Amino acid sequence: MSSVRVASFSISLDGYAAGPDQDLDNPMGVGGMALHGWALATQTFRRTHFGAEDGTTGVDDHFAVRGFENLGAWILGRNMFGPIRGAWPDHEWKGWWGNNPPYHVPVFVLTHHARPPLVMEGGTTFHFVTTGIEDALRLARDAAGGKDVRIGGGADTIRQYLRAGLIDELHLAVAPVLLGSGESLFEGLNMPALGYECVEQVASELATHVVLRRAHRATS
Amino acid sequence: MSSVRVASFSISLDGYAAGPDQDLDNPMGVGGMALHGWALATQTFRRTHFGAEDGTTGVDDHFAVRGFENLGAWILGRNMFGPIRGAWPDHEWKGWWGNNPPYHVPVFVLTHHARPPLVMEGGTTFHFVTTGIEDALRLARDAAGGKDVRIGGGADTIRQYLRAGLIDELHLAVAPVLLGSGESLFEGLNMPALGYECVEQVASELATHVVLRRAHRATS
Repeated sequence: MSSVRVASFSISLDGYAAGPDQDLDNPMGVGGMALHGWALATQTFRRTHFGAEDGTTGVDDHFAVRGFENLGAWILGRNMFGPIRGAWPDHEWKGWWGNNPPYHVPVFVLTHHARPPLVMEGGTTFHFVTTGIEDALRLARDAAGGKDVRIGGGADTIRQYLRAGLIDELHLAVAPVLLGSGESLFEGLNMPALGYECVEQVASELATHVVLRRAHRATS
Repeated sequence: MSSVRVASFSISLDGYAAGPDQDLDNPMGVGGMALHGWALATQTFRRTHFGAEDGTTGVDDHFAVRGFENLGAWILGRNMFGPIRGAWPDHEWKGWWGNNPPYHVPVFVLTHHARPPLVMEGGTTFHFVTTGIEDALRLARDAAGGKDVRIGGGADTIRQYLRAGLIDELHLAVAPVLLGSGESLFEGLNMPALGYECVEQVASELATHVVLRRAHRATS
């Protein structure tokens, strides 16, 4: 059964998914890269992002691997695709990931500004969706052909899908880091009322991995 | 060197230290007891609260033990002492813990309503302080005779002491539980700006233990 998943999404102890002042130099916001120490060290990340064969193979890598299993499509908020805000000045920006992005499936980018699809090497095509989160999910499900759809982020995109009751499972990695301000994942969201509970918790030295699953339909 | 510490303080994945609707039946708020599963199972808690000799002896108990080491005094918010709000109707309420509370040292209770000291069995005396958090800390330090002062909670009391820059170390236990609403420990507090960083992270099956320490004086 196909599901809609968030995976390998890192937050700080105080609940932030990115630090303050995100820009081209600090795409994760100030201090935000520290959230991802667990992921950057894994064999999976090293292989998919750098073509390297080193990296950790323990709990952290186990979750990184799970995040990529059975994926048929991704959905990204526009800020995860790039630092450009407002209308596209041109079509030069092609994402943070170079010519062969680590997706290898269709990726639906939420934006208010239309742009033609962008075909990359390795099977990744970026589709720009201006008709809202539900339409993006419908398109992603169709493209996924029965496989899972992964909501990549950022926090605001995930919060929109959570509020709409459209995410089946979230794997979060809580990093032993304090950020103090930035994009909060949970603030103002009542996760139990939305139907979520924590069904798994495993820690490495670099992060605590938790899996939240929607056990029932929202009651309020 | 004497320090001011928070220890064994449990929060949910979404950052709440207690659930909503705290009252006499639900002193931790609805769902709040689930935060404390790790602690309730420990040998230390079983011994101190129930005179039992069973209980876990692993990571969770290690932190429970640390929380009681070298303590000379405690500070509690009034809501941790009892469910009564406003003026004391009488002096019948003597805390949640029976005649022999698990403190065995002087305990300073923050309140707006004066009350004479309450001497309990086993070395615990409750002192009711109406002159604010700084004065309570001064009294607790004097009473502690060079040992540590533990700020027991609740969240609001800890937040007041954090804002005032008066806590040296916090041991928090993040339980794999979502509460959705209630008393948030971190909301609106910028912990790095207050000088705190995470210096330790160890998990059991029931909680992730983190230690936050004030590494430097606040910069803003």
